[in-house]
Amino acid sequence: MPEIILSINAGSSSVKISVYQANDKSGDPTQLAEASVEGLTAPPATLKYERGDEKVKGKELEGIESQEDAFRYILDHLTQDKGLPQLSQKEDIKFTCHRVVHGGNYPNSQVIDEDTYHHIEELSDLAPLHNAGALTIVRTVSSLLPHATNIAYFDSSFHSTLPTHISTYPIDPKIAAHNQLRKYGFHGISYAFIVSAVSAYLQKPAASLNIIALHLGSGASATCIKHGKSHDTSMGLTPLAGLPGATRSGSIDPSLIFHFTHDAGKPSRSSTQKMHITTAEEILNKKSGWQALTGTTDFGAISASAAPECQLAFDIFADRIVNFVAPYFVKLDGQVDALVFAGGIGERGARLRAEVVRQVRCLGFEIDETRNEKPGDGVVTSIGAEGARYKTLICKTDEQLEMARSVLEERVRFAKK
Amino acid sequence: MPEIILSINAGSSSVKISVYQANDKSGDPTQLAEASVEGLTAPPATLKYERGDEKVKGKELEGIESQEDAFRYILDHLTQDKGLPQLSQKEDIKFTCHRVVHGGNYPNSQVIDEDTYHHIEELSDLAPLHNAGALTIVRTVSSLLPHATNIAYFDSSFHSTLPTHISTYPIDPKIAAHNQLRKYGFHGISYAFIVSAVSAYLQKPAASLNIIALHLGSGASATCIKHGKSHDTSMGLTPLAGLPGATRSGSIDPSLIFHFTHDAGKPSRSSTQKMHITTAEEILNKKSGWQALTGTTDFGAISASAAPECQLAFDIFADRIVNFVAPYFVKLDGQVDALVFAGGIGERGARLRAEVVRQVRCLGFEIDETRNEKPGDGVVTSIGAEGARYKTLICKTDEQLEMARSVLEERVRFAKK
Repeated sequence: MPEIILSINAGSSSVKISVYQANDKSGDPTQLAEASVEGLTAPPATLKYERGDEKVKGKELEGIESQEDAFRYILDHLTQDKGLPQLSQKEDIKFTCHRVVHGGNYPNSQVIDEDTYHHIEELSDLAPLHNAGALTIVRTVSSLLPHATNIAYFDSSFHSTLPTHISTYPIDPKIAAHNQLRKYGFHGISYAFIVSAVSAYLQKPAASLNIIALHLGSGASATCIKHGKSHDTSMGLTPLAGLPGATRSGSIDPSLIFHFTHDAGKPSRSSTQKMHITTAEEILNKKSGWQALTGTTDFGAISASAAPECQLAFDIFADRIVNFVAPYFVKLDGQVDALVFAGGIGERGARLRAEVVRQVRCLGFEIDETRNEKPGDGVVTSIGAEGARYKTLICKTDEQLEMARSVLEERVRFAKK
Repeated sequence: MPEIILSINAGSSSVKISVYQANDKSGDPTQLAEASVEGLTAPPATLKYERGDEKVKGKELEGIESQEDAFRYILDHLTQDKGLPQLSQKEDIKFTCHRVVHGGNYPNSQVIDEDTYHHIEELSDLAPLHNAGALTIVRTVSSLLPHATNIAYFDSSFHSTLPTHISTYPIDPKIAAHNQLRKYGFHGISYAFIVSAVSAYLQKPAASLNIIALHLGSGASATCIKHGKSHDTSMGLTPLAGLPGATRSGSIDPSLIFHFTHDAGKPSRSSTQKMHITTAEEILNKKSGWQALTGTTDFGAISASAAPECQLAFDIFADRIVNFVAPYFVKLDGQVDALVFAGGIGERGARLRAEVVRQVRCLGFEIDETRNEKPGDGVVTSIGAEGARYKTLICKTDEQLEMARSVLEERVRFAKK
């Protein structure tokens, strides 16, 4: 039987699972199906399912209210799908991959056992808003699929190569060491995918690849990739730092929150577990960003609108992106293979791409307007003008595939003793 | 009798006063003397006094424990100095200029009356750690010199030209408007001096001057000056944002402080008045920066040391400076008249200047090592290499002179009714 791999991405209100089959020879695993349950926090939850031409969308589900419910439902759906004979019983699943936001000092993925689980749980104190979803699903999957090798992939691991002077905050070093306070960076699974995809596209070894990579979605970040490794990145101790997002402020004056509300520093009512979440962190992560400015999280709608608040949100986002593109260009000493747009907005935001590239034109970037409006179908496509000094690319990043691919590459390390 | 102007700069532990005499014809006022009392928070306070060749340094003072004491002492010292006949009685003082850090929405200086005083007092809620010193001395001077015109100069006024998309934080706009939460920027009196000095040096009108200006001292900031006006700056709602300083963290992940100590969000015991100071703000402003990393506030000593923690602090500072120089270059679309170093570290930190310029060399900056090691005596001196695409300058900024000069330029506006 072929080996089945599940790539699992659990957020606070959704569970998304991609099903892959390992190939006999080396090469990427083949995606067989993709299932997601959304709306867990706004019932009824709905199912989205795709397998080849078979498509289900928006099917309302009764009694599915937790991530555990959602995972059980998807697992049943997959094993009962006659069109998916490769996965007819849960024992067919050899590996599960979990995207975990904060991995602390882990420089690479980890097989989940009791020790790893508890360590990830401890780390979640650093990013309670971000790791909680993954923790629940990890627990569920481990108990439902005890025969599988369950592996955690961390969004922070890719950035374990940050130089010390970039990852260090100028604060009391004893407290920083004790409380593990440093720049970690996130979206690393996506950046790993981008490096290998752009490396293949440019036919240049990853180890000599210098790119400025932008992962722009409802969460957004920028990374300076030098010789294939993370040299600087916009997110910090948590995903809050750096660029604004759909509901996230990004970097602001660290004093600001104390002037926001009188109780901003107090523990939040939603800190249900023992984790420490302040009202301030919730405001800055969940009630800010372009939704706070415009009323919508949909950046496409914002880009298309002539309303002044939408223009302002657009201008803010472009400006803050440039604040990272320019120093990353300098940190690569102008030896830049490409500026790469990725993520939902990076892939679809033609107007934003054009504006960012226009603003950094003095560095030698230039967009081809026709290609930018209608980029090709490839994983990586060029939207740069002919003759521009530097390339501009779009990369369709795929975190699910990146995890599944890594599982196969690293299976020796994961082999159960 | 010639008109006497006092330029007053009061910090939490010091009061510095420069004495100027207005000239008959237009032109800069002439400095007659300079007096400062330091160590108010670490008694005994000491006097430093310079008038021509007459110099006093480190004279210990008994019973001088407050800013009011210090001001009275300096005033007596000045009026009793036989070598300073232009100021023999306090009625000779026509103008006093006060440096006030946070001026909220004031786009220029303000004559201090009851209304202005109370407005500045209200503003101080935004920057309690920074405005408190000035408020005390303003009150003292107003009561001791009621005949003089007392004027507040704000470090924020120069930045009133920031574009909206740069000054706006992506947070709830209603709360931002109500609580006056936006990027203000500081060191503006210094930047105003730098613009006029560099404009004169380059013989280019201020209105067409594009420079990247770095005010680097125990507090440090960077400003993008476009057509002579502030277009972007590194400090924010308060001076905490942006670059690190002697005891200041600069920008960090806004979540960090909630992971620093369990009581970081609580109001501090040192919030003696009704002002709102949190422990967190004190930690980030007073117990961070390169002192936290190295144990000293003296950046010169850090630059000269081979100790790993000093090298780290040096590397962090250079890196964070580049994070502003590069985007400001791009925001000027590469039309840059000069990169300008100012402030104590900007003037004396040859190694730091060389390192920053080395890091941005791909943009077209290059230093002349000989000139950098021994810059000339002028207010503005060039340290750039011959043939470099862009100029690199040092400017000996002088906030005291800038205030005194502005008083004379704007005296019509200040004329007592």
